[in-house]
Parts: sequence; structure tokens; C-alpha cells
Amino acid sequence: MSDQQRTVFTIFGSTGDLTYRKLLPAFYNLSHRNRLAEDFVLLCVGRKNYTTEQYLEIALPWLKKGVRFNFTQEAYDAFKKHVRYVVMDMSDPGQYVILKKDYETIQASLHLYYLAVAPEYFEKVARSLRDAGILDDATGHRVIVEKPFGKDLQSAREINRTMTEIFGEANVYRIDHYLGKEMIQNIMTLRFANGMFESVWDKDHIDFVQISATETVGVENRGPYYDQAGALQDMVQNHLFQILSLIAMEAPKSLDAKDIREKQIQVLRNIEGLSKEEITQSLVLGQYVASRDHKWIAYTDEEKVAKDSLTETFAALHVTLKDPNWTGVPFYIRSGKRLRQRATYVVIGFKRQHNDLFAAQNPSQDLLLIKIQPEEGIYFRFNAKKPGYGSEISRVSMDFCQSCNFDNRINTPEAYERLLDEAMSGDDTLFTSWQQVETTWQFAQVISDARNEGLIKLHPYPAGTDGPQAAHDLLMKDHRRWIDYELSEYSETLQHYPND
Amino acid sequence: MSDQQRTVFTIFGSTGDLTYRKLLPAFYNLSHRNRLAEDFVLLCVGRKNYTTEQYLEIALPWLKKGVRFNFTQEAYDAFKKHVRYVVMDMSDPGQYVILKKDYETIQASLHLYYLAVAPEYFEKVARSLRDAGILDDATGHRVIVEKPFGKDLQSAREINRTMTEIFGEANVYRIDHYLGKEMIQNIMTLRFANGMFESVWDKDHIDFVQISATETVGVENRGPYYDQAGALQDMVQNHLFQILSLIAMEAPKSLDAKDIREKQIQVLRNIEGLSKEEITQSLVLGQYVASRDHKWIAYTDEEKVAKDSLTETFAALHVTLKDPNWTGVPFYIRSGKRLRQRATYVVIGFKRQHNDLFAAQNPSQDLLLIKIQPEEGIYFRFNAKKPGYGSEISRVSMDFCQSCNFDNRINTPEAYERLLDEAMSGDDTLFTSWQQVETTWQFAQVISDARNEGLIKLHPYPAGTDGPQAAHDLLMKDHRRWIDYELSEYSETLQHYPND
Repeated sequence: MSDQQRTVFTIFGSTGDLTYRKLLPAFYNLSHRNRLAEDFVLLCVGRKNYTTEQYLEIALPWLKKGVRFNFTQEAYDAFKKHVRYVVMDMSDPGQYVILKKDYETIQASLHLYYLAVAPEYFEKVARSLRDAGILDDATGHRVIVEKPFGKDLQSAREINRTMTEIFGEANVYRIDHYLGKEMIQNIMTLRFANGMFESVWDKDHIDFVQISATETVGVENRGPYYDQAGALQDMVQNHLFQILSLIAMEAPKSLDAKDIREKQIQVLRNIEGLSKEEITQSLVLGQYVASRDHKWIAYTDEEKVAKDSLTETFAALHVTLKDPNWTGVPFYIRSGKRLRQRATYVVIGFKRQHNDLFAAQNPSQDLLLIKIQPEEGIYFRFNAKKPGYGSEISRVSMDFCQSCNFDNRINTPEAYERLLDEAMSGDDTLFTSWQQVETTWQFAQVISDARNEGLIKLHPYPAGTDGPQAAHDLLMKDHRRWIDYELSEYSETLQHYPND
Repeated sequence: MSDQQRTVFTIFGSTGDLTYRKLLPAFYNLSHRNRLAEDFVLLCVGRKNYTTEQYLEIALPWLKKGVRFNFTQEAYDAFKKHVRYVVMDMSDPGQYVILKKDYETIQASLHLYYLAVAPEYFEKVARSLRDAGILDDATGHRVIVEKPFGKDLQSAREINRTMTEIFGEANVYRIDHYLGKEMIQNIMTLRFANGMFESVWDKDHIDFVQISATETVGVENRGPYYDQAGALQDMVQNHLFQILSLIAMEAPKSLDAKDIREKQIQVLRNIEGLSKEEITQSLVLGQYVASRDHKWIAYTDEEKVAKDSLTETFAALHVTLKDPNWTGVPFYIRSGKRLRQRATYVVIGFKRQHNDLFAAQNPSQDLLLIKIQPEEGIYFRFNAKKPGYGSEISRVSMDFCQSCNFDNRINTPEAYERLLDEAMSGDDTLFTSWQQVETTWQFAQVISDARNEGLIKLHPYPAGTDGPQAAHDLLMKDHRRWIDYELSEYSETLQHYPND
């Protein structure tokens, strides 16, 4: 944060879940770390008729729960001084005059607008800000938006056109909070700062890649949003495709955001296997039904979810890349809710050796796991001689746990904390570009069209399992299995739905 | 051990250090594990006038100290029943009639002779056995010898000619007890049962290899032997060249001893850098002098060492391989006594990446350490993102410790235990062939000749340090440093002799 310019950070949707759970704790952390200038203003816009005091009171328990430092009254007081709550209906353009007046008293030279609202409001807020003359002055105006960046390719394009027209492409910050995660950022370091990893990172050495993001929770209170989006839009096309592109991209020319994104986009554009013809073979969608022990209810019984919803709560994909470095290497991607385990991780399976010296002993494939959550770190499983007589082999492992170290935890900002800080500093490295968003929407569109034509089946799976049997079969076709985070073994105990 | 054949194992030199410290404990362990048949006989030949009872009494404290299982009276009693002490001067051919009579009462169908004696006795014992008619019968006769297999190329050749003439090449078992060590055997598994390791195992990916075997002890009570041999003969030309050949060999056709040895010999024959012309640049010899704190005396003040001895107690070499897989890759080898640390390990340094993305942050080289002792395991050091803001990098590591696991320790036979067992079973995989021995003697001969011509300097180094400065300089020429076992870091604190 520069001392020269006064910053106002305006949150639209400040009484929503995201603000309470992520944004306010992130600002508390930034305040704690003295990353907010003395005169920094956090303007929280909401329709509810709160005073700033009342708003802060409501936020308090969320802060206590959500901040990463020990919560102290002193730090809270320091944080509080930045916050102002503004009562305003952001959907009413006429009310932006209220904001304008506030801004005139504040006299900031840098404005950030965080649209913590549904995408159908993005354009409205942007236009209202413009029409109220708020964006007229020469100060900086950056807007931060988060997925979903629309509801389909067309709406995403429209929203983007409006946003870039009003703010300019350079001032639109698209958050993919996965990019704020330590291990996601670490992927580039692992790949490009280590001779050994770099030299095995291609089709000659890698047999397959698996990217998994599994959740144990259901839709929680996000029913209205989730039932529109589904697993593909909520997780796969943004977060998991981001990871895919970091895993598979060529070395960028530099560590500049522009160069990195160029290489990431190249990966996305090279994705194959998701055409309408291929998709019936490469995509499995699922929806959870009640668990057999009735501990969990079915998705369609969740609050604010349509009883006849066909939204997928699980997706598994098999894609390949039209890239000579990756010819023939399958990338398996899966994500879902109400699964057995909460874990986000990448598994790299290395090609079997060219010799067959140990073939009789049926060696396991050597595997590298990049763990993103709940732990952050890397894990390598390989074959060693079984101690004792003879030359039997056994699976052994070594690992590096980035998040196990206390100092690391303390020093590691939360994803949102990092991203908000970078947005204020004008560093957009960790944000996604429109090309990335657009490319992934194109896939989403193909899938959506195929579904509308009835080409894709929705497989039920009991809550608390590993997803539908069809996701298992997707890999079995290739004589592979999904690899488990916990055991770091092939999941021999894959639970599936009988007669699915 | 087969039940069909009665085995007699005869140790010549049974009142020597090796027998007490290694061989008897190994047999105790084998007995404990029921690897010795009920009627197995361990015949211990010595000149000293002991009864079997007396001999066992002398051996008892060594056993208590040396066995790997908890010493129990019950197991000791079971072991004792196999042992017979025979008073005999093995250097007197006339006395072998004593042995012959013993053998006639025992009626064994398999004989093993362990020559735990100086190499100048090898031929005498072998001839005496033959001349006494002991080898005449149709039963199996195997002889086990240990380095030094001679005192120079010529004497080694002569000994070998006699031994193979009398016993046949297939029945001469040359012990390199390093081959009995778990991690040495593990090298092949690591290399050939893991796609990742196999694919980086060549000049395209490996920048250098270091093989170190450093000891903190001095010559102890082995003065007379060591002063003849020196570090090159005692460690480098056998143990360390064995390791070198396992690290650099091509994949053998099978895990058969014959195929493995063929590939190992190929490596030894490809060693370059040790010709008389090159050796002044590629070899550093040292001898320890008293430590500065006078805790340790000089080598030449050790018991039974010549006051004017020029024997090297330290050797460091830089060799390369005439092998397209290893063009340009330096193999640095060092070994010595009275050094700062006791450790045997291999370090593989991986080539720096082709990109220079992280060049500004001066990344460390990623390193793989294969630890042989005191710990057994592997250690990988690499670069990861430094937790927190920015994209700084930090060195991190992961490791696999084979010897840390209690079950592994219990299940892992000692080197001699394993080797004796295999010799009795007729499996010579872990023994060295004459070609291996001969090839390494050829290098020894060149070095010895060069020394005699005064081409090679002997560098003094204070006991308890990292050896002479010249050994440091040997790597500095290549802009490298010896890598420390303990820190698994470049040894920044290399101690050396001032004005050496």
C-alpha cells in the first residue's frame, strides 16, 4: 500500500456470506499486519438498515472465527476504525448518489469495488457507478468480481463487455481464490526451480495426471446459487482448470502475470476430449442421494434446491491436450460435494521403467502428490527394497509438508487476504484473464448443450461415498483408478452405488 | 540352507578381530533365525591353545555387543552347540591332517572356508587344503576371501590364479561387505523400479555425483594392515568403486548376479581420469596430523604405524566415465579416517533447469542423497515457494529413512550375516568377481607407480577436520563443493589446514 494515495474499498453485498466469512476476516488480517494505511476506508454497502456499529456487531463472531491471528480487542479496534456501513439498494441506480456523496467526503485517489453479489448484478452496479458520475474523476477505479462470471458463455461475454467498457480490461480483477493458495503458487516453483522435476514433466515421463477437489459438505446455504451452477461451473471450469493449466503449461518467458497467463491460456485452448461427440465418453456427472445410513439427505431435499433438480453435484472428466509435450497423457479431473473425504490435490503418475527387472514383483507406479488442502505439501511414493533378505520391493514414501510448520502457517496469508492485498497494490498476477474465463465457458457451453439434448446421464451416488460408479469406470477403461489423498494409495475401497 | 547336506564352515583366523566382531555375531544371528541346520558345524581354527569352552568364553562379550537381537542365554546355547575350536597353525601344511581327521568324523557334504587372514596366507591355506587331500572328495568346497585381495595388481593376479585353480572360479566368494548393506542393494531398486528416478539417471539430468565414506576413527588396532593398504586400497578401489558402478551402470538384462556384474564391470572399465598424466589433477591424497586441540594424535604416531609412513589416510578423486550416458558428468569420490564426521552416502546433483525463471532468486541445486550409514535412507532437497507473500523460494526437503523404522531394523540382517548366508546357499550375487577386482587393481597400480615417481603429493590435514584443503580445491576448480551428510547442505564450514 502506498502512503501517497488514499484507498476506498467498497464491498457490494456486504451482508452476504462471502463478506462475513472471507472478506472481513481478510481485512482484519491485513489491518493486523499493518497493510492498511491509516486513512484506508472499507465501505460496506448493504440494503439492511444497520448502523456501522450494528454491522460490526453482526460481523464480530465471524471475525473471531475467521481470522488467522489470535483475535485481540486491540487489533479489532484498529480494524474497526476503517469500516463504514452504508445503507443502500445497489440495484437502484438512483441511490448511487448516496455513495457519491460519501466518496466526495473521503477524497480517495484509489477506488476498489468488490462485487460480492450474483453475476446478474455486475453490469447494473457498474453502470450505476458510471451513470452517477463516480467513475468520472481521474483516480484509479478497479473492480473485483468473482465466479460465476455469468451463467453461460453468452452472458459471460456480455458481462465482460460491459465491465471492460466501463472500467477498462486492466482494471477488472477476476478472482479465482484458488490462485491465492500457497501450494497452487508453489506448483510453478516446484516445476521450474528444480532440475529434477522440470526434466520429468512431460509425456515421456508422466503417465497420467489426476486433479481432485472433493468436499464432504453438501450445498449448505448456497442452494440458490449452486443449483444454478453445479459442480462444473462451481469448481471444474475455474479452479480445476486453473490447476490443470499450471500443471501442464510450458515455462513462461518470465514470472510476469502476462507471460504466465499466455502459457496458461495455451493449455486451456489445447484441451481435447470435450467436444459434443467425445463428451459422452469423457464426462461423468453425478448427484448425491441420501446416504444409506440416512445421515445425509439427498441433494434434491436440500433447502432452496429444486425437488426435480438435475444439477450435478459431482463431475469427473477425462481430457487430453493437443500439445506435443503431452500427447497421450490423460488428465483426469473430478470434483463433488458430499463425498467421503475433503481434499484438493494433484497426482502425477510416472511412466513405468523401460526395463522389466522388477516386473515379477509387480512394482507400484511411483507417484507425486501435490497436496493443496487440507494439508499443503508434496508427497512422493516410490519403490524401495524391502528390508531384509532377498530383493523384494515395497512401497515407501517421503513427503514435505508446507503447512505443518507453525511458522509457515503464521506467515502464510489466507487466499483472500493475499488477493485483496494484491488487488490494492495493482498486481494482477493471481487473477484470471478474460481469455481464461472465456475459454472455459466454451467448454461449459458444449456440455450444457449436450445435456439439453439428453446426451449426458446424471448418475446418482449416495452421500458420503466416492461418487458414482461411472466415475470409477471412466478410469477403469484405461486400467487406472482414482488415487486417494489420505492413503496415498490406489483407493482399493472405492465405494459406489450398487446397480448404478 | 538345505536339510539334505551337512555344512561345515571353517574360519581360518578365528582369534582375529574380524571373527570376533563380525563373523561370530553373524552366525549367532543366523542361529537365532534358525538359518543354521541342526547338524551345522562352525569350525574355528586358531593357533592359540584354547578349548572350545575357553574360546567361546572369550567370544562371549563380543557376541553380547555384536548381535542384533536381544542376547538371550537360550539363543546362545543353541548357537554354542555348532561351534568347535581347533588348535592348528594354518601356516604349517603338515598340520592340515588335524583338520582332515575332523572333517572325516563330521562327514559334511558342503565345505566353506573363510580366510579371515592376511592375503599373503590365502595361497598357503588353499594349497595346504588341497595337498592334505581335503578337497579331493566330490563334496562342495567354497572359499570366502575378503579384501585386500593382494597388495598390488601382480600379487592379486597370482593369488587369484591359485585360488581359482584350486577351487574353481565359481567357488571363490570375494566379500565386499558393503554389498551386504541394505541401501547399497537398494540403489538398484531405486534406479530400476521407479520411473521417475530411472528417467533422470543420465548426463542430461545429472550434473554431478559425489560418493563419500568418511570416518571419525583413526587406524585403531589395524595399523599393520592399514599402513600397507591406505585409504585407496582399504576403501576406494573396492567399496566406493562398487557404489560408483551401481550408481552408473546400465540396466542389466536381469537381476542375475552375472548380468549385474557384467554391467558393473563395464562401468569400472569406462573410468577415465586416472591415467598417470591425469592423476595429478584428479587425485588428492592426505594424511592426518594431530588435531589442533591435541585430542587426536598424528597418523604417524599411531601404534604399529611407521614413523615416516607415507600411507594416505585420505583420498579424493575426480573421475569421469567413457560412456555416452555420462559424458561430462564428474564423479567425485572421497574417503578418509579421522575426519569430522562418520558418514557413507551418495549425492546426486541435478542439472539446473533450462529456464531462468527463478534465476534472480539464485535457487539451490536440487539434490538426492542416498544415505548408507549411519542412517539408511534417501533424502531429496529441492526448492519450494517460501510461504507467504511474493514468490521468493526456499530450500525444503523430504526424506525416507529406511533404518528409522523399528521393524526394518529388526528385519534387516547385518551385512556379514546376509553374506555368509548367501555364500552357504551358493548365491554369489552380492560377491565381487575377479574382473571387478582386477580392474580396480589396475587403477591402484597406476596410482602406486605415480606415487613412486613422486608425482603425487601427500597433504597433511588435522585430525577431526574435513580433510586437506586440496580436496576442497579439487571441487572448487569445477565451482562445486563437497556436500555434507548432516546438513544436507553445501558444507559452508569446510575446515582445512592453513597454508597447506
